[in-house]
This record gives sequence, structure tokens and C-alpha cells, in this order.
Amino acid sequence: MSDQPTLALLSATIDMRYLVPAFEAACPGIELRLWPELGNVAEIDAAVCWEPPPGVIATLPRLKLIQSLAAGIDHLVRDPALPASVPLCRIVDAQMASGMAAYVAWAVVQGQRHMGAYLAQQRAGEWREQPVQHPPQHRVGIAGFGTLGQACARTLLSIGYAVRGWKRSASEVAADLHGVALFHGDAQLADFLSGCDTLVCLLPLTEATRDRIDARFLAALPRGAHLINVGRGDHVVDADLLAALASGQLGAATLDAFRTEPLPAGHPFWQHPRITVTPHIATRTPIAVIAAQTLANLASAQAGRAADVAIDRRRGY
Amino acid sequence: MSDQPTLALLSATIDMRYLVPAFEAACPGIELRLWPELGNVAEIDAAVCWEPPPGVIATLPRLKLIQSLAAGIDHLVRDPALPASVPLCRIVDAQMASGMAAYVAWAVVQGQRHMGAYLAQQRAGEWREQPVQHPPQHRVGIAGFGTLGQACARTLLSIGYAVRGWKRSASEVAADLHGVALFHGDAQLADFLSGCDTLVCLLPLTEATRDRIDARFLAALPRGAHLINVGRGDHVVDADLLAALASGQLGAATLDAFRTEPLPAGHPFWQHPRITVTPHIATRTPIAVIAAQTLANLASAQAGRAADVAIDRRRGY
Repeated sequence: MSDQPTLALLSATIDMRYLVPAFEAACPGIELRLWPELGNVAEIDAAVCWEPPPGVIATLPRLKLIQSLAAGIDHLVRDPALPASVPLCRIVDAQMASGMAAYVAWAVVQGQRHMGAYLAQQRAGEWREQPVQHPPQHRVGIAGFGTLGQACARTLLSIGYAVRGWKRSASEVAADLHGVALFHGDAQLADFLSGCDTLVCLLPLTEATRDRIDARFLAALPRGAHLINVGRGDHVVDADLLAALASGQLGAATLDAFRTEPLPAGHPFWQHPRITVTPHIATRTPIAVIAAQTLANLASAQAGRAADVAIDRRRGY
Repeated sequence: MSDQPTLALLSATIDMRYLVPAFEAACPGIELRLWPELGNVAEIDAAVCWEPPPGVIATLPRLKLIQSLAAGIDHLVRDPALPASVPLCRIVDAQMASGMAAYVAWAVVQGQRHMGAYLAQQRAGEWREQPVQHPPQHRVGIAGFGTLGQACARTLLSIGYAVRGWKRSASEVAADLHGVALFHGDAQLADFLSGCDTLVCLLPLTEATRDRIDARFLAALPRGAHLINVGRGDHVVDADLLAALASGQLGAATLDAFRTEPLPAGHPFWQHPRITVTPHIATRTPIAVIAAQTLANLASAQAGRAADVAIDRRRGY
């Protein structure tokens, strides 16, 4: 008999065994059950989830915590049987922000400084300068201005870009982000978008943001803008994105998230000359962080302090 | 008759006419003489130079200022006839630092996050994750820790990289750079290099740094390191760089500066699979900044305050 918790590792799409060493290191004696071998489900204290099989979480009667592996919870709340009474937590992780800031800085510069053209010129043995525009003359907008968006803003500000941010509702930001022009709510979205030479999508995926990046949204950007999607594939209406590229309204797109992953063979994004595809790698959370946050969240839930750590499901993040 | 100054624009390698609008806007009535059409050389107050034809500066009897177009002055001091008594100034420009920080952030992430491999995978229609290493576990060293190096350090710190800097002599750095591990002088160079997973060369080109990046220098880096040269081509011994790549001691190189520019057709750097070549575009100074700094430096020199703005020729920067 152990006093240690029992965790279920639930995913219908990835092999969760990679998490085992981190949990065993963080909590010797912990019992880990890998779906579908869940044993006595009444023993399970917490479920650690990435795209869990629908309906399974509802079969765990003593569950005290539903832990997302990611910053997003969209992969959980689409389960109609998700128990409403169990606290639901996401990972909030500085290292995840660090990886995201690295990817976004790369993608912004890749577009703004024409680095893709230089790489192609090298393959052709061609020495030719592309237009050099100074970062302060280039406006980068970040849609979704939470932990990850603010980390990206810090890095882009340090380079000298003119940074703006948009979020659902007005709120304070840290003093070192006072250089960011902030917009909020639907009323200010068009104003925000009209000043985004590059737009970074870091929105959470909610019913309000699904399919949000459509023809109308893209038409509100300056002509020739660069879209970087590091949110979710379901934010983007693929056909509208392709049409905006074809018309020249959109200059380029860098996409790390797709409606279906892996991006299917033959999808027009793969070979489009102005789309950069990366396989959902913008950032990762170290497994030690996942284990530590899960165990801390479980302890909070068991101590009756779930409200301190759980997300607001109505808001969606 | 005008009270406005007369400037010579001197370059043996580029067309200096692109500077004319900025000088005329900054100083209506200014007289600009484009080499080789210098007219009465006794009228010339200042020479604005990029790789000037050797010996020409010495023919200007009333010269009060030699202004480099760049942060470096190596292209000037190699002229043996350069007058020793005329103040020599370089451009020190925040916008130049901004462009450099953008390029260096791009190059560091491109290497550390395997972005080149992702771009190649896209061309092959391949969805495959490369190893994701978190920025705090990656050490970036900056050799040459002046204005440009410190700007790059700020951006790399904001992403979360473990940043170290090396410079010739110890000195104070700004408070927001206290997270940088500082090394100085020849005595600490090997220590510095041993902890550079990525090394950024931003050294000035002086007799002490010419050919400095040779076999011995590269052998002091961790095996598989990434070299980013945004200094000068003459810092690098090309054959030693190629040998270090062949042996695996160096993992990759991103090169923006070359011993001969444009990089000659057929040079082995062009087609090397682990070398990225860009055509000396890491940063640029806006022409308005060049005009404003040149005119301010000339005013200081004419007012007897040349020492406030001129570089130390013995030190080389």
C-alpha cells in the first residue's frame, strides 16, 4: 500500500510512456496507468491528458484533477462527457514560453528580412541583397496576449520591432511591456489588424476563436502581410488562407499548427511557395515541468484549493 | 558662396550616390563631391568612406573628418597613406544594432532548433520532429561585446538562452545584461570558447583579430558548435573552417562576411551543406543616420572637440 497518488495517462493519439521517467523521478512510488490498461478506475486520482479518448475521463469516479499536457485545453473540452466538477489545469511554463519566443523571433525575421530568399539564392550561387527594412519600421501584432504572447513581445521589442497586442479583455501588463500598443475586444480588432505587417496568432482555441482567421479577418490586414500561426489549426480557414495568398492580400504564411496533424500528404500547404510548414514544433514543455506542475496541481485540488490552479472553462483558458 | 560644408564621397567598390538624398535633406545647400570628380580638393571638409581608393584621402589638404560608413574602420586603416592627424569616426547606431539583433536571433534559432532541416523536410513533404532542446540549455557566446554584441545579448537573453560574452578588456556593462557571463582578454578566451554551443563573431577587425578564427580557435569550441560570423571575412581562416566542418569539430557555420565579397563563384562555402551564406546583409545603417552622424561629427571636429567622437586608431575601434 502506498500513499502515493495514482495517475492515468490518457491519449488516443500519442504514446504517453515518454512521461513515465519524469513522474517516477518527481514522486518515487507513484502509480502510473497507461490507457487502455487502467485497472481499478476508482483508484485513479488524476488524469494527464493529450487528446484523450472521448468518454474515458467520465469513467473515473474518484478523479480530482484533469491535467492538460499543453497550454491549451481545446483537446479536452471537445469531449461532451468531460466531468464538469473536476478541476481542469493547463501547463503554464516559462520554458514553453522560451521555446515559443525562439520560434516566433525566427519566423518574424525569416519573413521580414527575406531569409528564405537568401537561402534560395545560396542554392543558386547568387549574391544579391534583398531590401533591408529596419525592424522599427515593421509592425508585429500578437493576437492572444497571455504568457506566451507576452514572452514573444519581449523578444520582439528587444530587437526593435514595433509590437502591438490584442486580447479578449483589457488587463494590466508587466512594466517592461509598456512599449506594446494594446488592443482588446472585438471592437478594436480591425484597428489592431490594420497595423500588423506580421501577425502572430497565439489565441487560445475556443468557440469564439475557431475559424476566426477567415477571409474577412485576413482582409483587415495590410496588403502583403505575413501570418504566423502558432495557435491551433482550427483557428484558420484553410481555403480562405489560400485565396488570400493567391490574391496577394496575404504575402506569406508560416504555419506550425494544422486542422489535421500530421498535415496530410497532398495538402496544398506542403508545396505552396509562400507557405512555410513546420510540424507543430514551435515549443515543448520539458517532461520534468509537466510532472512537477501536475503533482502540485493535484496537491492543491486535494487540499481544497482547486480554484487557485484550475482554468475557467467558460472562458476556455 | 555657401557656408555649408563640402563633403567627398569616396568608395572604390560601391556607388555612393544613394547617400545624396539624405545629406541634402539633413543640410540643404551642402556640397557633395563623388570620387573621382572631387573638384578643388582644398574645399573638402570631410570624407565619407567605404573602402576608399587608397591614397585619395591623403590628397585632401583641408580635411577635418574621415567618416566610415560602417561600425568598422578596417576598410580605412589599411590605406598606408591615411593621414594620422585627421579625426576618424565610425557609425554607432541603434538601428544598426536592431538589424544585427534580428539577424543573430534568426541565425541562432535556425541552428539550435534545426529550422534548416524543417525547411528541407517541407520540400520533401515530410512531417518529422527534430530534437527540441530548450533555449536555457543552449549556450551562446558573443565574441566582441560592444554596442552590437550587447544588443544581440539582450535579445538572446529575452528568449532564455544562456549567454556569455568575451571582449578584449574588462569593463562595465548595463544592468540588464547582468545575466551574461563575461570573459575578457586572451587569458580567458579558451574558457569562454569551451562553453559556446553557438559562437557569434562580432569582433572588430584589427591586427589582433585578423585570422583569429583558425584551427586552434575552432578546436577550443565544444564539438559540433555552430559558428555565426557577422564580423569580417578576414577574421576566419577559410581552410581551417572547412577542415573543422569536415572533422565534425564544427557542426555548422552561418557566414555573412567573407574575405572576398561578393563571395566568388565556385568558392566551397556556396554549396557546403552545413554552411549558410548570406550576402553581407546582417544589418544596415539608415542613410539618414549616416548623414546626421557625419554632420554632427564634423561639427565636433570643427569646434575642436574631435576627441569626443573619434575612434582610437591604435585600438582599432
